Amino acid sequence: MKTVQIAHGSGGQAMQQLINDLFMRAFDNPWLAEQEDQARIALASLTASGDRLAFSTDSYVIDPLFFPGGDIGKLAVCGTANDVAVSGAIPRYLSCGFILEEGLEMATLEQVVTSMAATAKAADIAIVTGDTKVVPRGAADKLFINTAGLGAIPAGIHWGAQQLQPGDVLLVSGTLGDHGAAILNLREQLGLDGCLRSDCAVLTPIIQTLRDIPGVKALRDATRGGVNAVAHEFAAASGCGVMLYEAKMPVNSAVRGVCELLGLDALNFANEGKLVIGVAPAAAERVLAQLQAHPLGRDAAIIGEISERRGVHLTGLYGVRRTLDLPHAEPLPRIC
Amino acid sequence: MKTVQIAHGSGGQAMQQLINDLFMRAFDNPWLAEQEDQARIALASLTASGDRLAFSTDSYVIDPLFFPGGDIGKLAVCGTANDVAVSGAIPRYLSCGFILEEGLEMATLEQVVTSMAATAKAADIAIVTGDTKVVPRGAADKLFINTAGLGAIPAGIHWGAQQLQPGDVLLVSGTLGDHGAAILNLREQLGLDGCLRSDCAVLTPIIQTLRDIPGVKALRDATRGGVNAVAHEFAAASGCGVMLYEAKMPVNSAVRGVCELLGLDALNFANEGKLVIGVAPAAAERVLAQLQAHPLGRDAAIIGEISERRGVHLTGLYGVRRTLDLPHAEPLPRIC
Repeated sequence: MKTVQIAHGSGGQAMQQLINDLFMRAFDNPWLAEQEDQARIALASLTASGDRLAFSTDSYVIDPLFFPGGDIGKLAVCGTANDVAVSGAIPRYLSCGFILEEGLEMATLEQVVTSMAATAKAADIAIVTGDTKVVPRGAADKLFINTAGLGAIPAGIHWGAQQLQPGDVLLVSGTLGDHGAAILNLREQLGLDGCLRSDCAVLTPIIQTLRDIPGVKALRDATRGGVNAVAHEFAAASGCGVMLYEAKMPVNSAVRGVCELLGLDALNFANEGKLVIGVAPAAAERVLAQLQAHPLGRDAAIIGEISERRGVHLTGLYGVRRTLDLPHAEPLPRIC
Repeated sequence: MKTVQIAHGSGGQAMQQLINDLFMRAFDNPWLAEQEDQARIALASLTASGDRLAFSTDSYVIDPLFFPGGDIGKLAVCGTANDVAVSGAIPRYLSCGFILEEGLEMATLEQVVTSMAATAKAADIAIVTGDTKVVPRGAADKLFINTAGLGAIPAGIHWGAQQLQPGDVLLVSGTLGDHGAAILNLREQLGLDGCLRSDCAVLTPIIQTLRDIPGVKALRDATRGGVNAVAHEFAAASGCGVMLYEAKMPVNSAVRGVCELLGLDALNFANEGKLVIGVAPAAAERVLAQLQAHPLGRDAAIIGEISERRGVHLTGLYGVRRTLDLPHAEPLPRIC
């Protein structure tokens, strides 16, 4: 069949066929092959690398499904993997729930599933359990994905925003807003094709280079709400404040162009492959060098610090300080 | 605000407020309170009760959101908890992803979240990590939920459909098709209100009574596709066949009425609180007695056996045997 039918989510033959022909083949691994109602994972495979389980979930509703630098399938692996990885864990296992709209082109679903499988394989992540629902035409827009991810946090690592204190240094692992600007360009037809590309990536490899550096305190990937949202989370969790330096923010010129065109701030744009990292002052230069030495962190920069003064503030290009509020909302819906 | 706005899923202030005012309060637990991008669960809390992690996910798209016996929130806890529990594990932790339609009544969301929280609390399950997306009006129908669940499988338990062999006995823990018939009645306005009620329930307590009985081989909860779908799964996984006895199927009279009215078979109707259990012949009577002694299993019955002959067959009321095919599709979409 060339399109998704209601029967593909019904628990009958059609669903079994879709599972066998598409998901089992693409995600092929021994846990999935058992075909029980749950994946069964040896706890020893987790306790061998840590003492705590990192467990995270995200749903993906991005529109359009395909964009420069990725697609909803790649995003559904990267996003959840990164939410696990910023704890210091190596993401190992994913669950995957599809909500499909009746009439979706089967070729579209196959392309998304193939992309998920390739992204997971490259990151050594197994998609071990899943679910498929189909809703009638108009009850969902094309295709939504939920993933939940698991990994073990090494016993020595206790990264967390609550550990931040005044004087700690904030770094970002690369340019701001590439994902948000790429989607905005597509959706608003700004015509900047070719210059804008989502930064969607699994960040485990670059995070792993930070595991043995003393003084690394807190990591977040700056997704919805951008670096500004992470700054507010860091400020709230630490009970301190955050000072950011506008002049130090790495921003691609095309992203800067979109921001100027629309009067928006790249600090609020979504990223899908960028970390904000809080470190003790003594560790800052080492962390910066480590980030810049990695392909995922070439444009890393020190962008601010934790301050005594509560709230989030920005020192502007001309040295003027102002309060940086968390916007009521992002520039656009369905960014991830 | 009285309705869900796009801003509630944007990573900005509105989302933070929704998280703090609704989710954090309703699901209140120490893992969620950390407000990191991932829950951090002591692996010792899992290894203390088992050697394998059971990991399962389901998305819930049921329409209508509220029905006799439950709602989408209760279902989202029960369904995933049961998929974990049928491995022998005690479900302990859930993730939760909401996809909300812009304009959804906030009171509806609150009612669903309150129901999830109450169901989880009663089952001693913690909802430890979550995500909220909002899509524009018309891009989703009201509210979808994904949950993923975790629990540890005790070292001695290796239930699985592959262990079934000819002569093994099949039991069901209660009446067939209550959930499916209740939803069908609402959706098709059959007017049987008051008689039909979903069986939606967390099955951990009744499953736990079977853990120490030698000869219990395989458990599944009979959801989408009903008991017939489980029979086909058991047949496929064991490489044997399944024989079911029509006369032995426990079916509520109101459900029987719906089936006769519409020419449908309760064997294909969805359940949300019923187990199909495969056991060695010597264990059958003990398992039946154990089930019937539990409030969730009062109507338990022996309904069939594993046969040499491949495929799924039904011995009808008058002794005539026929092949029972897996239907191409369920009677209706969005049943769970």
